[in-house]
Amino acid sequence: MDCVFCKIINGEIPCNKVYEDESIFAFLDISPQNLGHTLVITKNHHANIIEIDDNELQKLILVVKKVANAIKKGLNAEGLNVFTNTERIAGQVIFHIHFHIVPRFAGDGIRFIITKKNYQGQEREIVQKIRKNL
Amino acid sequence: MDCVFCKIINGEIPCNKVYEDESIFAFLDISPQNLGHTLVITKNHHANIIEIDDNELQKLILVVKKVANAIKKGLNAEGLNVFTNTERIAGQVIFHIHFHIVPRFAGDGIRFIITKKNYQGQEREIVQKIRKNL
Repeated sequence: MDCVFCKIINGEIPCNKVYEDESIFAFLDISPQNLGHTLVITKNHHANIIEIDDNELQKLILVVKKVANAIKKGLNAEGLNVFTNTERIAGQVIFHIHFHIVPRFAGDGIRFIITKKNYQGQEREIVQKIRKNL
Repeated sequence: MDCVFCKIINGEIPCNKVYEDESIFAFLDISPQNLGHTLVITKNHHANIIEIDDNELQKLILVVKKVANAIKKGLNAEGLNVFTNTERIAGQVIFHIHFHIVPRFAGDGIRFIITKKNYQGQEREIVQKIRKNL
């Protein structure tokens, strides 16, 4: 398996480990948006939030919560962004599911520049397309 | 309770509903980053990912996965951003936990402009501060 995160888990690639249990692993992002930016991953390889099985996802999200709390307290963060990206267009670079936890501080320079879109009456049609696939 | 999302759940404020079960509710964001941008929330009021109890968070994340899959398929999205913000500095506006699911498409104009930070040797110290609070 030529996956960077699998190699981090098995020790082939070094990391700054934050947390580890039987199923879940967490470590500092090497290219942090803020100091303390941590990635939380499953030890088993799953590509993203769509591919992962329910049981593993439930274990993962509890550790995300636990580590988020520790980051907020330990670094006196004023807030947190928690996110997971799916596919390259959404910013995913390593195709092994990971939740980012980014502590936020006043004046940290992070801004999301997004032009909001307008439904122009298409809400019902969009909802139908989603609901048909639930 | 003067919470907009609690009012959406109990029908006081209208919404475009995407999903509902005993514990979880999902609806279109009225100010979408892309068409199909959906918010997934617990029916019980919890402020954020730190305040929510484990059982509710586990129920919530499974519906996030389910709806994410339906959005990707139903809208032929090329990718997805899934995120939850904690506190105003991180972009949280309604203080009732919600996961955003944003479908992504080529040329959708969404960009995250972030200046990456540099540890300058502080990795170990930062990890210790986090781990002490785990």
